[in-house]
Amino acid sequence: VSEAIMQSHFAELKEALTRELGIASVTVDVGVAESHSGDWSEVAHEKPSLVLFPRTPAQVAAALQILASFGQPAVVQGGLTGLAGGATPRSGEVALSLVKLNQIEEFDRIGGSITAQAGVTLEQLQTHVESEGWFFPLDLGARGSCQIGGNAATNAGGNRVIRYGTMRDLILGIEVALADGRLLTMLNRVTKNTTGIDLKHLFIGAEGTLGVITRVVLKLAPKPVASNTALCALESFEAATRLIKEMLSAFEVMWSDFMTAAIKSGDFKAPFADIHPVYVLVETLGSSPESDSQALEQVLERALEDEIVSDVVVAQSLDDAHRLWEYREAIGELLSRLKPYAAFDVGIPMGSMDRFVASARESLTGIFPNQQHLFFGHIGDGNLHVLSGPYASSAELHRVEEVVYAAVGEVAGCISAEHGIGVVKKEFLHHSRSEDELDLMRSLKTLLDPKLILNRGRVIDTDAASRASSEK
Amino acid sequence: VSEAIMQSHFAELKEALTRELGIASVTVDVGVAESHSGDWSEVAHEKPSLVLFPRTPAQVAAALQILASFGQPAVVQGGLTGLAGGATPRSGEVALSLVKLNQIEEFDRIGGSITAQAGVTLEQLQTHVESEGWFFPLDLGARGSCQIGGNAATNAGGNRVIRYGTMRDLILGIEVALADGRLLTMLNRVTKNTTGIDLKHLFIGAEGTLGVITRVVLKLAPKPVASNTALCALESFEAATRLIKEMLSAFEVMWSDFMTAAIKSGDFKAPFADIHPVYVLVETLGSSPESDSQALEQVLERALEDEIVSDVVVAQSLDDAHRLWEYREAIGELLSRLKPYAAFDVGIPMGSMDRFVASARESLTGIFPNQQHLFFGHIGDGNLHVLSGPYASSAELHRVEEVVYAAVGEVAGCISAEHGIGVVKKEFLHHSRSEDELDLMRSLKTLLDPKLILNRGRVIDTDAASRASSEK
Repeated sequence: VSEAIMQSHFAELKEALTRELGIASVTVDVGVAESHSGDWSEVAHEKPSLVLFPRTPAQVAAALQILASFGQPAVVQGGLTGLAGGATPRSGEVALSLVKLNQIEEFDRIGGSITAQAGVTLEQLQTHVESEGWFFPLDLGARGSCQIGGNAATNAGGNRVIRYGTMRDLILGIEVALADGRLLTMLNRVTKNTTGIDLKHLFIGAEGTLGVITRVVLKLAPKPVASNTALCALESFEAATRLIKEMLSAFEVMWSDFMTAAIKSGDFKAPFADIHPVYVLVETLGSSPESDSQALEQVLERALEDEIVSDVVVAQSLDDAHRLWEYREAIGELLSRLKPYAAFDVGIPMGSMDRFVASARESLTGIFPNQQHLFFGHIGDGNLHVLSGPYASSAELHRVEEVVYAAVGEVAGCISAEHGIGVVKKEFLHHSRSEDELDLMRSLKTLLDPKLILNRGRVIDTDAASRASSEK
Repeated sequence: VSEAIMQSHFAELKEALTRELGIASVTVDVGVAESHSGDWSEVAHEKPSLVLFPRTPAQVAAALQILASFGQPAVVQGGLTGLAGGATPRSGEVALSLVKLNQIEEFDRIGGSITAQAGVTLEQLQTHVESEGWFFPLDLGARGSCQIGGNAATNAGGNRVIRYGTMRDLILGIEVALADGRLLTMLNRVTKNTTGIDLKHLFIGAEGTLGVITRVVLKLAPKPVASNTALCALESFEAATRLIKEMLSAFEVMWSDFMTAAIKSGDFKAPFADIHPVYVLVETLGSSPESDSQALEQVLERALEDEIVSDVVVAQSLDDAHRLWEYREAIGELLSRLKPYAAFDVGIPMGSMDRFVASARESLTGIFPNQQHLFFGHIGDGNLHVLSGPYASSAELHRVEEVVYAAVGEVAGCISAEHGIGVVKKEFLHHSRSEDELDLMRSLKTLLDPKLILNRGRVIDTDAASRASSEK
């Protein structure tokens, strides 16, 4: 395609989009393009040809219809906090930013649900509902920037999954702009709904490949008034699998090497006199300050008696709780020290966790004896983080990824429990999903987005989808 | 099609299926056909032409491949306890029974998950895991007969949805035999899995229209050791919406007319000296007998002080708890007295519940003053049951259905929160789902089952799907 044709294509596209969205919502400004050139991943930034800021769900749908008529691919952007490169533009793409879709539309104070547009930030939503005695349980570090639409598109998890589930479990209804310009409004507000195929699940976790989520109805929980925290020292991971049978809301496991590195990085006081193989940070959320704290102490006393737990520190105040969480949150400091690192958020079946950690540690230490290999995670939901670095080259990084993902496949784990596939993990997806599954994903992509307008080349292989499409 | 051609079609089909499944798994026996001629709904029974009893997931897939090659439609059958007519054969259909797929294959005692074949009964599964200190939270009256595969295909709910979610929330992995004979094995065992489009949700709740669920991996919960029950009397439904903010595992609302009818039907002692507008049966499930019972009493004391609750009976023993549940469980006896009745399991947003109940009661009483109209349900999850009868004719029944479903549509509720669509509610589905949604369901049906082999004419309109398919 010649330069002249491309220029005329973009001029016509811009004109059509401007006619629909208004001049303030379509920009070629270099500064704006720069700030929409990438997400938090390490994927190379690329300035989009145009940046669109639709202000209503109907405008999102109208923009997609225009993009489809021009055969113009677009990348969908929320808070740009993703770690898998899904929102980083590829060459020649238009960026469709949902940042102006930032209205909280309806708060059902009786039923405990809220309808919000995709561009509302997680923190904005949390604060809004907490002021009225309700609670939105999803929580993650990027809360100030990440958006509800992105949380839905990537099925975000975070700290409280064992008690409240992932984003998918918190979504009652959804609205999606399809690639052909239709707006599918499915703003269900009831928990139980068995009226045929539950279409919202096609779009949750699909990372924007099948449609653009424009609005969501979220289920709220009663606001917990009591929170109790304790840090436990254990002699084995097997003991942790017994402790988790207690009903807790957070359950963070840190292996010994992680704790040692965390203490060092933050210059913290060691929590126990001795070093133990495994540490578990537990938290309960409940409705009764007195009886909840008593319940947690009963659980821990029993665990000490049964020799599941070797030692324990129970927080007696909010300050105490904060200090206990500091060990786990040292991860931020550790990340900056280990750069450039390989970071994994894999899902491992609990029964295979111990074996996986031991064998991955052995493999990594064997190949890269001079790097640090740290293991920790929200283990209650099978989500293990591995942090390994620093590495001298991208070839070394790639080697580490191959070693870890192949090991994940061997224990029937999943290569991403949290951050999604995007472009970063696309080549490793076959370790988690069969060829038949990838085929069905491609068929769904072709059914819903035959011109491959939306997030082309993310999650599943676009070329194969194009092939399947052109063979029809 | 002439009789002779039909006879030769069935003879050839039977031969091909017998070759694949073995002679014991393909039968034309009239007694067997009779016992597979319908589910628990009122839909007229119809004997299937053949009954198939595949013994492995691979045999299910192989049978579907043969059926597709013959263009022979089949109805999928589990425990036949459905109330929407989804498993009742239609004329000329083959019945595909999953009753022989009854193996529990793998119990992950560490991670708390279990892999079971579709034909395992709910009760068999519950008993199996409870003997080892784990708990499968799904529970419903048909537990002794209904099967795990059917629970998944219909996204069953039951009594504990507010604490544990519906069947969908308890499913980690799934295996599905597709209409083209492929077996899609997705036996994921981790809670968090963000590796692309989550295909299992296409099949959960699709009532067998997109594939036959052959195996599921279920998430187990720690077994609660403490259960506490109380019956509360309230002056309004609005008070109930305040009580539900407490963290409970069951929350059954019964309006006054239901309680009066229940007491009469079972000749029970009235729970309170006075009659109150609304009653709520609450239950907690927890890990600590002493502190849990104390926590529930604290909650109820506060509710009495705040005048949310007017009166309360707290069960002091298992016998007490059983007696309190008897009021709610009088429904069985009530059903037999009101025959023939209209029974609804609709989903109503909590904020509209009070208004819906008042207006539906007024409409029904206005049109049918001599019938009983009883309101109750698992209100914590928005699931309202309405029981109305007895009726003199099917025309009267249909009139009641129209009145109730139109009213559900007006408050943006859903026409089925529990029993599904099947054939019974198909004509009313447009009250809950838009034309675009129905279109997308038909597109998915056409993509996954182009010859309409599976559960043809259930949930979505087959003719329209045929039309869409032939237009391509």
